[in-house]
Amino acid sequence: MSIERADQAAVKAADRAHVFHSWSAQAHLDPLPVQRAAGSSFWDYDGNRYLDFASQLVNANIGHQHPKVVAAIQEQAATLCTVAPGFAVDVRSEAARLVAERTPGDLDKIFFTNGGAEAVENAARMARLHTGRPKLLSAYRSYHGATGTAINLTGDPRRWASDTGTAGVVHFHGPYLYRSPFHATTEREECERALAHLEETIVLEGPDTVAAVVLETIPGGSGILLPPPGYLPGVRAICDRYGIVMVLDEVMAGFGRAGRWFALDHYLDQDTAPDLVTFAKGVNSGYVPLGGVAISAAIAADWDERPYPGGLTYSGHPLACAAAVATLGAMAEEGIVEHAAHIGETVLGPGLRALAERHPSIGEVRGTGVFWALELVRDRETREPLVPYRPRGDEGRPTAELAAACKRRGLWPLVAGNRLHVVPPCTIDAAEVEEGLAILDEALAVADAHTTAGATSAA
Amino acid sequence: MSIERADQAAVKAADRAHVFHSWSAQAHLDPLPVQRAAGSSFWDYDGNRYLDFASQLVNANIGHQHPKVVAAIQEQAATLCTVAPGFAVDVRSEAARLVAERTPGDLDKIFFTNGGAEAVENAARMARLHTGRPKLLSAYRSYHGATGTAINLTGDPRRWASDTGTAGVVHFHGPYLYRSPFHATTEREECERALAHLEETIVLEGPDTVAAVVLETIPGGSGILLPPPGYLPGVRAICDRYGIVMVLDEVMAGFGRAGRWFALDHYLDQDTAPDLVTFAKGVNSGYVPLGGVAISAAIAADWDERPYPGGLTYSGHPLACAAAVATLGAMAEEGIVEHAAHIGETVLGPGLRALAERHPSIGEVRGTGVFWALELVRDRETREPLVPYRPRGDEGRPTAELAAACKRRGLWPLVAGNRLHVVPPCTIDAAEVEEGLAILDEALAVADAHTTAGATSAA
Repeated sequence: MSIERADQAAVKAADRAHVFHSWSAQAHLDPLPVQRAAGSSFWDYDGNRYLDFASQLVNANIGHQHPKVVAAIQEQAATLCTVAPGFAVDVRSEAARLVAERTPGDLDKIFFTNGGAEAVENAARMARLHTGRPKLLSAYRSYHGATGTAINLTGDPRRWASDTGTAGVVHFHGPYLYRSPFHATTEREECERALAHLEETIVLEGPDTVAAVVLETIPGGSGILLPPPGYLPGVRAICDRYGIVMVLDEVMAGFGRAGRWFALDHYLDQDTAPDLVTFAKGVNSGYVPLGGVAISAAIAADWDERPYPGGLTYSGHPLACAAAVATLGAMAEEGIVEHAAHIGETVLGPGLRALAERHPSIGEVRGTGVFWALELVRDRETREPLVPYRPRGDEGRPTAELAAACKRRGLWPLVAGNRLHVVPPCTIDAAEVEEGLAILDEALAVADAHTTAGATSAA
Repeated sequence: MSIERADQAAVKAADRAHVFHSWSAQAHLDPLPVQRAAGSSFWDYDGNRYLDFASQLVNANIGHQHPKVVAAIQEQAATLCTVAPGFAVDVRSEAARLVAERTPGDLDKIFFTNGGAEAVENAARMARLHTGRPKLLSAYRSYHGATGTAINLTGDPRRWASDTGTAGVVHFHGPYLYRSPFHATTEREECERALAHLEETIVLEGPDTVAAVVLETIPGGSGILLPPPGYLPGVRAICDRYGIVMVLDEVMAGFGRAGRWFALDHYLDQDTAPDLVTFAKGVNSGYVPLGGVAISAAIAADWDERPYPGGLTYSGHPLACAAAVATLGAMAEEGIVEHAAHIGETVLGPGLRALAERHPSIGEVRGTGVFWALELVRDRETREPLVPYRPRGDEGRPTAELAAACKRRGLWPLVAGNRLHVVPPCTIDAAEVEEGLAILDEALAVADAHTTAGATSAA
């Protein structure tokens, strides 16, 4: 290829010539050219290394270029790159078995898609057809993908431009004690009020019109909003009461991110399992596009005798499934999920809490495993966000400056709204965490300068 | 992996344990285990070879296991398996350049997705936001994917179970002379009447409410319905008249399938280019999931200064793009598109027409390149379809028997509705075509037995 040996500038110029980027204004993009990656880091063409505290888009759970996954992709490529969904294929069956083995309850049938949005689309379809009801309930402060139904389910501002208002979706408020929609002051109160709010919403919408409650187990892109321990069991009980399908979206939270195989393992057991679980990202760390839905026995049985009315050319793609088999195998063999939990408890969590003691811009630290958020504020007392919910014009400058300060120091951050999400690979080691925390410690001075405390000290 | 050396039965059993299949009733599936593939054929675990007259799901345009594409995937896997959409990556830029080079007009910006459905979703989003209008017009007898907006755009029975009736889609009739919705008797009359019908539909819907006309260039899954030569230029003129975005869906028809780089090259030129073109499948033959939208300069410019409100984690996935670069390179170097056109003109088309002379079940033969349909009928005079539009119960037996007869003889067919689609890889050689035609010649006796002529001769 003509740009194979190109330098940084040539790669960037080639990108700007023809590539239209996701979620971006195209005229002012300055995309960093990435040449290679390994473990917790990636490098540009000038040899600059970046510690990946974003896991790309929170997908590279196993780290970059894991040799077992690379080898599995290469081996499968040599054998069979593409095969239609209707055939039986060894790696597809094995990937399904490995996912089903980790899901709770009797969610033992796996429908594979190319990614999370399509997984959510199919979960919504299954729930509607299973119940014969039209409406889907989902939370504000959520993200479920950018296709027709998935973007309407989404509760964050990414929905607005695509909101048809007619997708049969009703949004409700999930628990978020730091900015409680329910004026609660304790976790227990937040939990009780959030459940009462959900149930009241269902009652007022008409329970017989509600097909599903669709929730991220831990809302990710909206702030890594860990639910109170009783919330998801409570949602399960409400769904049971009204015959509503409970869908948990584990696209971001699953496969080690939250220090468990699924984040729901923190909250639910075999008897309180959801009916459908959507996944993507961590299932094969995004080495090949893959997503899917794990389906309960009762819902799967709906399509024993009549055709399931959904599909896609690449359902159960062999290359993607081979990557999943290798990823899930390596995660088990190498204890990667347990490592993620341990590093979160012993290094990353304590380190972030220590930062909060020194930086007035940090309003709250929350997370588990390698799934953490620093909620950034102008003022710890008022909790005014460092940037507005949807920044306009110059309003996003504080977090943009923070991101730039991280990048200059060799840390690739993930800024979302008024938060810095700290979401490195599950395989990150303690030294790399410490290196990243030291960079954050420096960079956060930029955010501090935008706080009332910072303004005072500067005055 | 535990089933690595397994036999046919074990692979099938593993599939049935956990894999939920697309578009299927799950209880009675008997999926053929596929072990390997090469060129125009694939093999099961018992060593049985099948000539792939379906190109899997009409995606393996370059044939199976093309060595250049396999090598490119392996090489990219060794370098960089996953990277977020926000970065600049050599293979992504090069894939975008190679696609843009083949698109007509100024469709020079490429937004990559994982497949065709997401491509259509994004084209619909772009058209709605570009025009500020809500409605999408699409044709009956079409397929555009199975996600929220794409399945509502779809005009075939796969839509019905998911049709929300509220997706802002209006369906119209496209040209189909063999069963003319317009009572036309010549191609020219069909073309004029189809255009008048489309324009009247737009006028009655309210032109200012219509964002886009979305059409497969050659409707594929619905019957390989080649439009009359003047139809698409006429649609272009109508869209221009009312400020409507013209979207051509080339997911199935593109990249050599129709004997051209894009099927639209048969009908349109630089001055009559559509505004958006969706693609997937043939762009990398499905070796890694990939799709996308080619965007006109005028529409792309809408998002120069404001963020485009759509995206996905795997937009421009490096492995998928590396496969596209290798596929498009090999197709050019090896003259694969020209070969597809030539084999269609000289061997496949004439061979299918010869079959029609011998088999009363063949009502019409139509196609181009390696994109052909045999429309099967009970009676050539009445044109009664061999099976109904949506077969119930035993009504699908004639085509099911035909498919089984092909498979027994080592030919993998694609049956869709009352048609046998003949869609082998673009790389198929004359001897393989002749082998497949000979099998079809035998197998079609099964279909003939269900015709009035067959019943007569049997009586």
